[in-house]
Amino acid sequence: MNQQELIVFMVRSAWNSQVKRTDTLFDSFTYEQMLQPIAPGKNRAAYLAGHLACVNDQMLKLLGLGERNFSQLDPTFITNPDSAEVDAMSIPSIKKIWKDSNQKLSSCFDKMKSEEWFERHTAVSVEDFAREPHRNKLNVLISRTEHLAYHLGQLMLLKNKAD
Amino acid sequence: MNQQELIVFMVRSAWNSQVKRTDTLFDSFTYEQMLQPIAPGKNRAAYLAGHLACVNDQMLKLLGLGERNFSQLDPTFITNPDSAEVDAMSIPSIKKIWKDSNQKLSSCFDKMKSEEWFERHTAVSVEDFAREPHRNKLNVLISRTEHLAYHLGQLMLLKNKAD
Repeated sequence: MNQQELIVFMVRSAWNSQVKRTDTLFDSFTYEQMLQPIAPGKNRAAYLAGHLACVNDQMLKLLGLGERNFSQLDPTFITNPDSAEVDAMSIPSIKKIWKDSNQKLSSCFDKMKSEEWFERHTAVSVEDFAREPHRNKLNVLISRTEHLAYHLGQLMLLKNKAD
Repeated sequence: MNQQELIVFMVRSAWNSQVKRTDTLFDSFTYEQMLQPIAPGKNRAAYLAGHLACVNDQMLKLLGLGERNFSQLDPTFITNPDSAEVDAMSIPSIKKIWKDSNQKLSSCFDKMKSEEWFERHTAVSVEDFAREPHRNKLNVLISRTEHLAYHLGQLMLLKNKAD
């Protein structure tokens, strides 16, 4: 494993670890827990599951891995805060898009060569990337790993709440 | 900037960004907010500030950057959950160790060459590192960035609570 492969392994492992922890947590949540706010007046777990799924789905396009699968849900889970819109979807269907989005990403990541991670992502221009080579695909994954950890910290507050 | 320098820049930038967001948040918190739990029955902001400061302090030793400055606070902020022990310290003194720990780390990181980040950290043996070269200093920083993001997500729940 050369240094480029090593760093991609490290960043992908960090991502996988956060995905696994979050997935295990969602699996453990009852229907009631999914509808509980993480703190009084804050987002419900169901909203965050849909939010994380939509952010995953956006990554497909940002990393040039293909078309998005459920961009129609952006208004519900990204553009707007938690609302009655979320209740229009069933809990199992929200849990499913979370799982599907991770499987899709994982399968796409497996096909990427390590050098591809150092290419520009689709939201940065050729000119900007020439000046700022850190705005590459690996940096997107680093940023999304932090985003996931941020919300995992919130979701953990619901753990054992129903016990 | 070669690829090794680029990746160290990316990981350090991610760390700095989370530190800055968290620091701005702690700066904005009133005395009352520092003593509020992030959710009913959960850790208070003051505990989390001390917790993050102690984890920073541990990194000095883990990365071979020098001796720790306040390991005597580990029982209060790492080994045990939030308790009356926290109230034995003043809020300004807790905010100060948070800031000091970041300044110390930043100053140490500035002196590190990019190749040093790929050396083993002090909690992995020479033998294990030969088999698992990803257990390097950069991986510690990636992991601590997620840890910080995790708690930042929780601390954000207190934002505007006093408004």
